[in-house]
Amino acid sequence: MAIDGALHLLSASEAVQWMRAGRISAVDLVMACLAQIEQTEGRVQAFAFLDAEHALARARAADAARAAGHALGALHGVPVAVKDIFDSADMPTENGSVLHRGRMPSQNATAVARLEAAGAIVLGKSVTTEFAALHPGKTTNPHDAARTPGGSSSGSAAAVGANMVPVAIGTQVGGSIIRPAAYCGNFALKPTQGGINRGERLATSQSTHGPHAGCLEDMWQAAIEQAKRCGGDRGALGLIGPDTLPAAIKPNRLIVLETEGWSDLDAATKEAFARLLDQLEAAGVTLIRRADHPFVENLEKAIANGRAVCGAITSWENRWYQRGMLDAAPDGLSERAKATLLKAEAMTPDQYRTNLLARQQAQLAHMATAQLADAAITLSCPGPAPIWSGDVPGQPLAPRPTGDFVFNAPSSMLFAPVVTVPLMSVGGLPVGVQLMGQQHEDARMTGIARWLNENLKRVAMAG
Amino acid sequence: MAIDGALHLLSASEAVQWMRAGRISAVDLVMACLAQIEQTEGRVQAFAFLDAEHALARARAADAARAAGHALGALHGVPVAVKDIFDSADMPTENGSVLHRGRMPSQNATAVARLEAAGAIVLGKSVTTEFAALHPGKTTNPHDAARTPGGSSSGSAAAVGANMVPVAIGTQVGGSIIRPAAYCGNFALKPTQGGINRGERLATSQSTHGPHAGCLEDMWQAAIEQAKRCGGDRGALGLIGPDTLPAAIKPNRLIVLETEGWSDLDAATKEAFARLLDQLEAAGVTLIRRADHPFVENLEKAIANGRAVCGAITSWENRWYQRGMLDAAPDGLSERAKATLLKAEAMTPDQYRTNLLARQQAQLAHMATAQLADAAITLSCPGPAPIWSGDVPGQPLAPRPTGDFVFNAPSSMLFAPVVTVPLMSVGGLPVGVQLMGQQHEDARMTGIARWLNENLKRVAMAG
Repeated sequence: MAIDGALHLLSASEAVQWMRAGRISAVDLVMACLAQIEQTEGRVQAFAFLDAEHALARARAADAARAAGHALGALHGVPVAVKDIFDSADMPTENGSVLHRGRMPSQNATAVARLEAAGAIVLGKSVTTEFAALHPGKTTNPHDAARTPGGSSSGSAAAVGANMVPVAIGTQVGGSIIRPAAYCGNFALKPTQGGINRGERLATSQSTHGPHAGCLEDMWQAAIEQAKRCGGDRGALGLIGPDTLPAAIKPNRLIVLETEGWSDLDAATKEAFARLLDQLEAAGVTLIRRADHPFVENLEKAIANGRAVCGAITSWENRWYQRGMLDAAPDGLSERAKATLLKAEAMTPDQYRTNLLARQQAQLAHMATAQLADAAITLSCPGPAPIWSGDVPGQPLAPRPTGDFVFNAPSSMLFAPVVTVPLMSVGGLPVGVQLMGQQHEDARMTGIARWLNENLKRVAMAG
Repeated sequence: MAIDGALHLLSASEAVQWMRAGRISAVDLVMACLAQIEQTEGRVQAFAFLDAEHALARARAADAARAAGHALGALHGVPVAVKDIFDSADMPTENGSVLHRGRMPSQNATAVARLEAAGAIVLGKSVTTEFAALHPGKTTNPHDAARTPGGSSSGSAAAVGANMVPVAIGTQVGGSIIRPAAYCGNFALKPTQGGINRGERLATSQSTHGPHAGCLEDMWQAAIEQAKRCGGDRGALGLIGPDTLPAAIKPNRLIVLETEGWSDLDAATKEAFARLLDQLEAAGVTLIRRADHPFVENLEKAIANGRAVCGAITSWENRWYQRGMLDAAPDGLSERAKATLLKAEAMTPDQYRTNLLARQQAQLAHMATAQLADAAITLSCPGPAPIWSGDVPGQPLAPRPTGDFVFNAPSSMLFAPVVTVPLMSVGGLPVGVQLMGQQHEDARMTGIARWLNENLKRVAMAG
């Protein structure tokens, strides 16, 4: 690769090697990313806040530390974008809400502070949907500006997809890491529940955070550098794994999950996925579908209502805080957020408990499949990112303006680790495929994802 | 009881009955509590913030609602104190820290808002130790001003113990509800982990909140009125039980737990507890001690290191946020908090995980005893509240200035519900006794506590 003009295309791990070798400086790298942002941000709009001067000052400090012979972190000088629901002390944190415009937290979120401790340079805060829920921000899909980048980690997904940064941090409660990653063509990890310290933000019982990246090396490095330093959530074991990308693991058997998303899936995506599975079988991997084993059928049934279960649990858990916000500022929430809140307020405690029970039962159904296969494989999104050009005044609000999380609800409610790999495209747009493991198999899933990534041909289907 | 001059001695349930019957007004009740506070606060110093005018305005509104024939909540017009780590929108919330002096949150904590929804009137914010940890606030024990009221819910315990309010809200991670309640002569509930919605505050994996009260009726009512409205913590089933105090339940069998506190216990407290157990046996209750069944011995062993396990887990979970605070304000934390932080920062992730594993193993050991008995009984505190008159310059800091949580660590790490009952006194100072159940047996423990309270004679020993 020619160095000049394309530094923003380096992976983080390549860039760090080049910096260690003295081939480039952190300032070079940050400037290349800023140049790429300048070229693409007008269309993609990934950032809620960007501070070029601040980033350059950090890059100069990183270069000075290297020149002085200091020990360098594994993310030394690497530009990252951080979803704007993580507090940052030196930039506003607005949570995608007009209510928090210009809000300046008193300290960095634990995760952000630990990314920086590993050497990363936070370029800015990436756009989130309103309070990481349904109402979309300004970001567009880097592959087609008429389409959604997915949500709620919209800006993180688009910034990586548009090669603005090699790594960005997102969060997921229902499908907010994996779906936008799949729509934007990224690799991403949604860790085991509690895998990486969520820090001090208002979090629900399914919320997780994890990295988007342009390659598996960077995805894993960003995850493990955080977990090594600040562990998992309070009460959770936290992500465990090697200091660098796990070795590739060839699976012997994979469970093919349909999920409730299958019935509505478009024919081209179904065909693309079938061709991918054909490659797996040709490589000697045994596929186990719902018809092949009653435990798989049992799991499919347990997750068949996943969207509704995830939605009910999450909206109940958010209702108290959101009611307080709405009472304080009746015009401060979107119509979408208000509708979600009112629905949650119509629930009884026993309805909430029944959803928790459904979640636990599904987790048991998942654990029962552990000995059948090395992992489960399914789509990361229901086909390519949909077109959505905004609400139409006078028309009902679209329920899923950032796409559907129907393929993501299962891993969220199962607390299971997933890695999405950009193995397919449909009509020229990325469609991801995900590997799901048992809880705490994050490193194994990454290893299996690596094997697929290194051994399968990308499937490209006309739309 | 003569009404004049002693209204502050009414229980909340009596006061609500009297208000419903038109015998007294909410203003009468609030004024009586304010008068009692005026008489005793100079000595007890239970409040971090008190707003008499605000409370009286609320009381007038409560009286107007009653006069207008509106439906009245079960805590209609009842003055309460709220530990100053719950956010309140109309009063400062300082978390016992100089760093948060004058801090005004944007909304009420979920729990506080629901107490008010049940009709309660928040008189003020009660003193907490610094960030609900070790460093004490200004509050003294209402039974002896030279002694600690216990911590960290110091002000809540003292306000109830001094009859300033019939009900106050506290929180517990290690022993911060039950220990101060026991030192101050209150009834209190530490619910099953997650039992009552903690709301938005920074909480650790063992943190809970629960009521202090002058009687079991009020204790239960305050708990269930919150849980009915806002359920438990995110992901937890939440407190379940009847709308008013459960019926008394006579236990057939009780496990007598020593815990790691037994070996250092003073002779007078041991003797008082022995006499209480004698009464139980005389009433036909079978007592099961560690020598009587291997499962009890197994449980004693699993909790024998409870203080260290709780301390390690909690300090690890707090370290990220506290490091951020310390970096931002090097003089903003007490020497005690700094020492705890430095100790936590010397821990590895695997040491934290090992403590989580110890906690889970102890929980299994506890579950294994479920069929042996109706509950476990033990002391709520290691004898009467100790004398502590402040740090001595140049001397090492006292590790437990608010008393020892050695009898409370077990229920905290077991996620188990406990009710403390002021059944004993030693040297004229209260010493509580607690009933501990399996997870989600909060209502059953309250029923058993009620039976003990109604059927045992108070034991008074010389010191």
